[in-house]
Formats: sequence, C-alpha cells, structure tokens
Amino acid sequence: MTTPPTVSLIGGGPGAWDLITVRGMNRLNEADVILADHLGPTTELHKLCDLSTKQLIDVSKLPYGKQVAQEKINDLLVEHALAGKKVVRLKGGDPYVFGRGFEELTHLAQHGIACEVIPGVTSAISVPAMAGVPITQRGIVHSFTVISGHVPPGHPLSLNNWEALAKTGGTLAVIMGVKNARAIAQTLIDAGCSRKTPAIVVQEGSTESQRSFRCDLGSLADVIEHENVAPPAVYIIGDVAGL
Amino acid sequence: MTTPPTVSLIGGGPGAWDLITVRGMNRLNEADVILADHLGPTTELHKLCDLSTKQLIDVSKLPYGKQVAQEKINDLLVEHALAGKKVVRLKGGDPYVFGRGFEELTHLAQHGIACEVIPGVTSAISVPAMAGVPITQRGIVHSFTVISGHVPPGHPLSLNNWEALAKTGGTLAVIMGVKNARAIAQTLIDAGCSRKTPAIVVQEGSTESQRSFRCDLGSLADVIEHENVAPPAVYIIGDVAGL
Repeated sequence: MTTPPTVSLIGGGPGAWDLITVRGMNRLNEADVILADHLGPTTELHKLCDLSTKQLIDVSKLPYGKQVAQEKINDLLVEHALAGKKVVRLKGGDPYVFGRGFEELTHLAQHGIACEVIPGVTSAISVPAMAGVPITQRGIVHSFTVISGHVPPGHPLSLNNWEALAKTGGTLAVIMGVKNARAIAQTLIDAGCSRKTPAIVVQEGSTESQRSFRCDLGSLADVIEHENVAPPAVYIIGDVAGL
Repeated sequence: MTTPPTVSLIGGGPGAWDLITVRGMNRLNEADVILADHLGPTTELHKLCDLSTKQLIDVSKLPYGKQVAQEKINDLLVEHALAGKKVVRLKGGDPYVFGRGFEELTHLAQHGIACEVIPGVTSAISVPAMAGVPITQRGIVHSFTVISGHVPPGHPLSLNNWEALAKTGGTLAVIMGVKNARAIAQTLIDAGCSRKTPAIVVQEGSTESQRSFRCDLGSLADVIEHENVAPPAVYIIGDVAGL
C-alpha cells in the first residue's frame, strides 16, 4: 500500500486480547484514535498497545438509542479522520459478521475517506471451539450456517427462512440469540429438527468469564433461562455439539 | 493454564502472514517443531518467528494419498510431542472449518497428549472481505452459510441438502468448490435461486496473488473456467456480492 488508509476497521476477535490478528495489533499501535465497542479485546487493550499516547473512545457508552448511536459513531470516525488522525475502529469478532462494518465503510467513502478492513476471528466459530466443539467434522457435516438471532422468527423484519435453515443438514450457530432462544428452538422443532439434536450454549467465550452448557435443542431455552445466560453468547445446534 | 499443552493446533488465517492471531504468533515463537500446510502463512513464516531454531515440516508435501497423509500427520504430531518437543500444527484458515482439526485433537487425546486449539480467521469470511464483499449487511441478510464444495451435489457421500441451502434467505459462501462449481450452481438454480443472483469468485484472497471476479450465479462456472481459477478459492452467492 503506498498511501496508508486513514481509517482501519478491525475485527478484534471473540474477547481474549491475543485473539486479534497481528495486523490488527500493529494498526492499534500506529493509531492516534481508537473507537472501541464493549466486545472484543477492549478491556485488555493495554496489552496490545500503549494507550497513554492514544485517545480511546468507548463508543459502547454513547448515551443514545441504537440508530442515533451508530450515526454518532459514523460522525466521530469522519471527524477524527478529517482531522488527520490515524483512526482505528475496533469491533468484536469480525467486522462483517453482523457488525455493521460495511455501513461504516460506506459512510466513510461518502466523505472521501479510505477504509481498510482487517478481518477478525468470528465468535460464531471460535467461541464453540474454545468450549470443545468443532463447528464442522468430517463425515458429519459439509456446511454450517451462522444466524443472527436478533430478530425473532416470524417477525416482519426477519430475513431468515427458518424452514430451510432447519433442513440444511449442517451445523447451526446462532449469535445474538439469547432473548429469542425459545422462539428459535420451537421454530426449528416445528420445521422438523429433532428435540434431541445436540446443542451447546457458550457465554463470554474465550474470556476468563466463559461458561458453557451442553444440552439439546429441546432443552436449550430452559438451560439459557435457568443458568441466566446473558449476552454475549453463542449457541450451536447440530451433531457436532455432541462430539 | 498451569501445564502448557504439548501440541497447539493453530489457524493460520487466509494466507497473508499477519492475519494469524497474536496468540498463534506467540506459540510459533515458542515452538520446537512446526507442521504446516501449504495454506495459511507458510511461505512467509520467517516474518512471524525465527525459523533457524525450529524444525519446519511441510506436511503438504507428504508423498502419499490423502488418507495415508493424514495418518502420517497424526503420527508425526504424536512422535514429536512424546519426544518432549513443543509442537505446533499450523493450518490455513480456522482449524475447525473443514480442516480436520478435531480429528487431530482426537488422535492426540487417544495418545494422552493435550491439544490447545487457537482459532484462526476463516477464509470463507475474510477472503470476500479483502475483495470488498461483506458476508452480511443489515437489511439484506440475517444469516450466511459456509459450504464445503468438495463433494458434488447428489453424490452418495454428500451431507448437504442443496434444496434447503438454496432457500435459507442468507449468503452462501463456498470453499473447496472450484472443481464442482458448475454442478453446484446448476443445483442451486434448479432449486429456485435466480441465475441473476450476484456472485464473486476470489482466488488466493489476502495474498499478493489475489484475483477476484464479480459475476452472477448463472455465469459463475463459466467465469471460473475462462479465468482458469484454481484453488484455493472462495465464491460468494447472494445479494451482498452485488454491493
């Protein structure tokens, strides 16, 4: 690259500080301004770079509704980039896995600001891995689907065909699905998935607070409720969860 | 961790040397023996660690058929671990995304050897990202499916329900699918996907040899053929490929 881009959009990985990429760490060290979510390696950022020389903006604390907060983040990115700062936008997981990364890149482009995307380790795959579950296994699946559980099945804004998702033959990994777990599990069962399909729920995977619970599709929602599982969490539904 | 595990199973990322995780790089530096595939950061490994103090075994060059080679890799892992060496098994992408990582972990466990899994950036998500395509985008998809295209649709060993995969409503990302691209595209079209669904093919994503071709589902196989696309390659099918 001859002209260094002004904004780096970085995937910070599932939470542990050292599961960011080497390229991501290098950009953090070069940054003047870091806008960080509450996910990813934010709480241990000092292990990756010297924060005393940088301005750290915790954008998870923006005191507004969701849409306004995103607009505010977009504005802050543009403001600092146009001020000539080296800006890092640090997100949890991968910036393009339900992370609104492309919206931020598009917004920057509209203001004539280049944006470099640095992929990250997505929690959908890495969090079950840290709890002992491989998202694929030879002879068991040839596909896996990562689903945002943010919008419940049947909701007018849902873009998922849950009937089809129930029948792919592959592993299902649901992120942002704690609140809607009961509706999601029931919808999959109604669409033909066995209640006995193995499942695992993992909260705060890769961090010291990691908790995981093996169960099955039929008991998934009860386990989440009884164990008070709270976001961020991932659940896996499929035979690999029984390995 | 009180007792360091003997074997570290590391995802090396899509190919660029600095898209491995910080934890992965640290384990490479601690290693005595590295068993590496031809994928991942293998050709630039010297940028991550001092190879002069390590034994590097290029297991992609094992001169046998596929099954025998995997057994040989398993044997080498056990042999060096039992000899008291710090062993790293370096794979391309993520070890659990169609990487046979869990088989190697299981084999090591059968020999009483602990195995630490260090997730990697999967090529299925990062390779399209490096070519400008986000695997998800708000308002367009709430899911994406990563498919191994190694076994063609309709094959007795296929574990994919292509009818369902065609109808999920989400992005499809196919890896190891160059050879079977024509059969896969036709199967999706027969199952109801529009020939005009946007697509992108990316070869050797994230490396200096990266080539990418935007097309649609109807022309995907022709593009792969006319451009002589060779593995490793990823293709994305879905509206995000048109952004």
